[in-house]
Amino acid sequence: MPQDRLLDVIDNPSALKLLTNEELEILASELRQEIVATTSKTGGHVASSLGAVDIVVACHSVLDCPKDKLIFDVGHQAYAHKLLTGRRDSFPSQRTFGGLSGFPKPAESPYDAHPSGHASDSLSVALGYAKARDLAGTDEKIVAIIGDASIGGGMAFEALNHIGQAQTPMVIILNDNEMSISKNVGALMKHFGAMRASASYQHTRDEVQGMLENSGNGGRALVNFGRNWKDSMKQFFLGNSMLYEQLGIQCTTPIDGHNIALLREILQTALSANGPVLVHVVTKKGKGFDPAVENPVEFHGTGAYDPQTGKAVKKAGGAPSYMDVFGRALVAEAEKNQDIVAFTAAMKTGTGLAEFAARFPDRFVDTGITEGHAVGMASGVAFGGKKPVVAIYSTFMQRAVDQSIINVALSSLDVVFCLDRAGLVGEDGPTHHGVFDMVYMRMIPNMRVLAPSNEAELVNGLHTALELGGPFSLRYPRGSAEGVEVPAQPQVLPLGKARVVREGADVALLAFGRMVGQAEKAADLLAEQGVSARVVDMRWVKPVDEVEIARAAQTRLVVTLEEGVIAGGAGSAVLESMAAQGLLAPVLQLGIPDNFVTHGKVDQLFHQLGLDPEGIAASVMQRLA
Amino acid sequence: MPQDRLLDVIDNPSALKLLTNEELEILASELRQEIVATTSKTGGHVASSLGAVDIVVACHSVLDCPKDKLIFDVGHQAYAHKLLTGRRDSFPSQRTFGGLSGFPKPAESPYDAHPSGHASDSLSVALGYAKARDLAGTDEKIVAIIGDASIGGGMAFEALNHIGQAQTPMVIILNDNEMSISKNVGALMKHFGAMRASASYQHTRDEVQGMLENSGNGGRALVNFGRNWKDSMKQFFLGNSMLYEQLGIQCTTPIDGHNIALLREILQTALSANGPVLVHVVTKKGKGFDPAVENPVEFHGTGAYDPQTGKAVKKAGGAPSYMDVFGRALVAEAEKNQDIVAFTAAMKTGTGLAEFAARFPDRFVDTGITEGHAVGMASGVAFGGKKPVVAIYSTFMQRAVDQSIINVALSSLDVVFCLDRAGLVGEDGPTHHGVFDMVYMRMIPNMRVLAPSNEAELVNGLHTALELGGPFSLRYPRGSAEGVEVPAQPQVLPLGKARVVREGADVALLAFGRMVGQAEKAADLLAEQGVSARVVDMRWVKPVDEVEIARAAQTRLVVTLEEGVIAGGAGSAVLESMAAQGLLAPVLQLGIPDNFVTHGKVDQLFHQLGLDPEGIAASVMQRLA
Repeated sequence: MPQDRLLDVIDNPSALKLLTNEELEILASELRQEIVATTSKTGGHVASSLGAVDIVVACHSVLDCPKDKLIFDVGHQAYAHKLLTGRRDSFPSQRTFGGLSGFPKPAESPYDAHPSGHASDSLSVALGYAKARDLAGTDEKIVAIIGDASIGGGMAFEALNHIGQAQTPMVIILNDNEMSISKNVGALMKHFGAMRASASYQHTRDEVQGMLENSGNGGRALVNFGRNWKDSMKQFFLGNSMLYEQLGIQCTTPIDGHNIALLREILQTALSANGPVLVHVVTKKGKGFDPAVENPVEFHGTGAYDPQTGKAVKKAGGAPSYMDVFGRALVAEAEKNQDIVAFTAAMKTGTGLAEFAARFPDRFVDTGITEGHAVGMASGVAFGGKKPVVAIYSTFMQRAVDQSIINVALSSLDVVFCLDRAGLVGEDGPTHHGVFDMVYMRMIPNMRVLAPSNEAELVNGLHTALELGGPFSLRYPRGSAEGVEVPAQPQVLPLGKARVVREGADVALLAFGRMVGQAEKAADLLAEQGVSARVVDMRWVKPVDEVEIARAAQTRLVVTLEEGVIAGGAGSAVLESMAAQGLLAPVLQLGIPDNFVTHGKVDQLFHQLGLDPEGIAASVMQRLA
Repeated sequence: MPQDRLLDVIDNPSALKLLTNEELEILASELRQEIVATTSKTGGHVASSLGAVDIVVACHSVLDCPKDKLIFDVGHQAYAHKLLTGRRDSFPSQRTFGGLSGFPKPAESPYDAHPSGHASDSLSVALGYAKARDLAGTDEKIVAIIGDASIGGGMAFEALNHIGQAQTPMVIILNDNEMSISKNVGALMKHFGAMRASASYQHTRDEVQGMLENSGNGGRALVNFGRNWKDSMKQFFLGNSMLYEQLGIQCTTPIDGHNIALLREILQTALSANGPVLVHVVTKKGKGFDPAVENPVEFHGTGAYDPQTGKAVKKAGGAPSYMDVFGRALVAEAEKNQDIVAFTAAMKTGTGLAEFAARFPDRFVDTGITEGHAVGMASGVAFGGKKPVVAIYSTFMQRAVDQSIINVALSSLDVVFCLDRAGLVGEDGPTHHGVFDMVYMRMIPNMRVLAPSNEAELVNGLHTALELGGPFSLRYPRGSAEGVEVPAQPQVLPLGKARVVREGADVALLAFGRMVGQAEKAADLLAEQGVSARVVDMRWVKPVDEVEIARAAQTRLVVTLEEGVIAGGAGSAVLESMAAQGLLAPVLQLGIPDNFVTHGKVDQLFHQLGLDPEGIAASVMQRLA
């Protein structure tokens, strides 16, 4: 660890006001080193956070947080913010169980204004803060930082439209880093690209830097919001007039997001405006760490890596991920079925669709971070006779519940929802756990819901979904699969039929998805205590297997196990079936209780929730006692 | 009924191709008369449908439906479409039980390309149809009709951004009628307004009409998509460059949406383009029926009215609506509590907030049709120390499930969700029934859910929500309340405590919301058959009253009654509580089964679903037998 760092004496961001631009640049460099040193051990969102260091430093040097509000979109860019707001010493604990969150989290710090995690919401939150401020008659500054991909999300547009009308002071920093998690899509990106590439932008940068060297006030010329400037200077600076200007939001020309002095000048001016200002900032993901600059996709969300070379710390071989199994299975299905069209919402790599996209580019649709539109568009594709397969993380499908109901299920269309990262995702924590999908999917008429218990079941489940037709939700976890053999020829799983994994007479463990493996181990523990436990892989959350449920009701205790919230979930589907069948039996529902689950390794979380084999066995023994 | 109408000989829209422009104008006039004649008896979405008659006539005269696809957004404008597509004779049955739907509905007609009902989805669906077409290599035309309010929704922006990138042929008709359901909000509207008001637009209209009179091909000059035109003509025609042009979508200048000849010319040209074209059309809501032109808000969604005067057919006095009771109660709360901020998503009048808006304009926020942004912004307002009350229809809150989880509940913010139109809404049918909210709200940690059984309970429920703090979902039905007295001083309802309405020993009817009244009548019927039924107003969907549930489990049969889907709903909350308490008792779950519910009067729907008193009593007797 280097000696005499500026970073080590900064306990809160007000200290930044005392530093010169040169010192702030040194601080930024130290922050980058600290981010690499820590994330090389913990993993995390490295590339985005490195790219935004200078923006964060500039913001805290001109703002007075926590009175002022700094609102991060998605929160992938917030590590420097954490390091500058009293969390330097605890930073190495980030993303670990009991440690700091990897995202801004209001419960963790008064400097975190908003629980970042899902894209495109920061502008709505910022406008809400501004409304509360205006009602209270106070004067805090409000700054939102949003990336070029997030700003394409519908919620951000809704907010921009409202901000343009409301005309209350706030600053939107558009962090345009030319790359979202996968490659950006959408006409908006082309628009940004044209601006970045324009000769006038290059010219502007050179010009402005020259001006700044000659005059500390020169930067203000860039963002003089008077009418005269608009009439005369704008055409000079902007190759294209900005989209957002037409919504009533004053916009700057794209500026260098790694020039702290320039950023500070611009921000000071923007913060003194009496209406909303969008500061368009161009940055490079991974800035300051060459491996991340060269491979920003890998360094978007990464595991541990070598801080010198950037090489990932290899884990022992082991099973493939569910994601990759899904990706390969879909390619195999698509080879036989020309009608399959795969959808992702800006997660081509992150949903295992890279090979599909390369093999079948015409049948691959990346909508950008727009889950609602993706599902709506899939409904049109299905009306047109094709078979859309929509791969979206469970937590992000929460954005498209209405479209799943109205656009897909109401017409009983052939749309397969592949909900990756269903269940507990581990280090990313509560904004990313996929624990609600079994509830919001099974409530929808015409929808079938399957929770495969291993990768072979996933392959068969996907095949089943495509063969059966109709709206279908297939949910599977993040990370490594179970290591079982994948069928060479996928099979159609019989509708609503469970699979008895292990016979037993005392209790019946009715398990969904990955909980089947936990249940098997719990059954071993129960056997040691003289309890004979049947283990059933329920497979179908909807329709549930009524026969197997009736058989379970003959034991001393029916135990439902699910990796999702208990309230309304798969276990409740079992209860509903029992009630309808007139079956009376004690039922123990194990799953996610009525609390948000923290971050940490999945094993740690399972343990905390009593969903590890020991916890399951203990709960069963307690209930039998 | 007039003799010798053109309309009477048109059995499908291909007949329109044989008509002259003058004949099409006569047809449009006949369509307007038919719409008024029918809706004056049935009620319906009159103003929008009248305003769009000429657009619909023009579309069908140039398209070849159902091969070509005509996609309506929201579907409020589709009556002329229904009348022209083989449904003239059945049109008087629209919105009645067993009759035509009031919205486009694919199950009803091959001419209905999409189940319209929720705003802003048509462009996604259209792009999906286009994608399927392009994959199949066919050549059908695709036209979406979207209003100026709907196009401000985030989903529409997501689609526009994607359409601009995809560059596949399709036509978007922006029906700009200067008024959404309430008054339009958002900077986008200001943008449209500036365009409409611009001298160049007025000039263009006169010019173009002149040209058309002189030359049948003159209209093409308006939408010549070549580069030369863009460079030379565009600045002449457009006072402001269009927002959408910057997304890569060619746009026309605003044109007169009641000039069928002009519309046909423009559409023909737009349909021959090799990329997406937005045709900007200006119309007047209610066009052709003066009372609707003069009062488009009242004629947005209306009941029966006098076809001469437009005066509403008065119903007998009776109870006030739940909506109005809520609106008055919120004004009373807001008088005492300065922190209350009311939110609507373009439904000021439709959620009973008109008086609040007039009394407390600074504390009233209309976000436009943007439920996701509304909830996100409410979270910012709550972080800022205020108390947002978000009034959104149950069915439209489906658009903001994620924001309710991540933005509100995760931080346990003080946000009260007031879900109007919860339960069956009647004539509007499956896209508008609010039958999922008890499921998707109770699954969320930190959320409390209350279902008032009458207007007094609603007033107390709202007070309770504000007093308790935290995320709170209050759901109440469309239409008349029960006619009970409203408390002068609202009371705090004890958390998780039910209210026994009537004692009984044989069975326990655990009813939620409006089902309490049904349960009381069912109890009368059961008494006649010698069955003593306890009736409990459960009040709380979450947390449920465990004590009352335990007492119910002592009877011969626990009956849960809810106006929502059974899968995961309030009845399942009762089952979960019984399982957790180790209670074994037969349970009959009554509610919405696993099917979409059709349209019709609520009484008819209750009867069909067995949720009327007779149906309830019969189900109970059958289960006891």
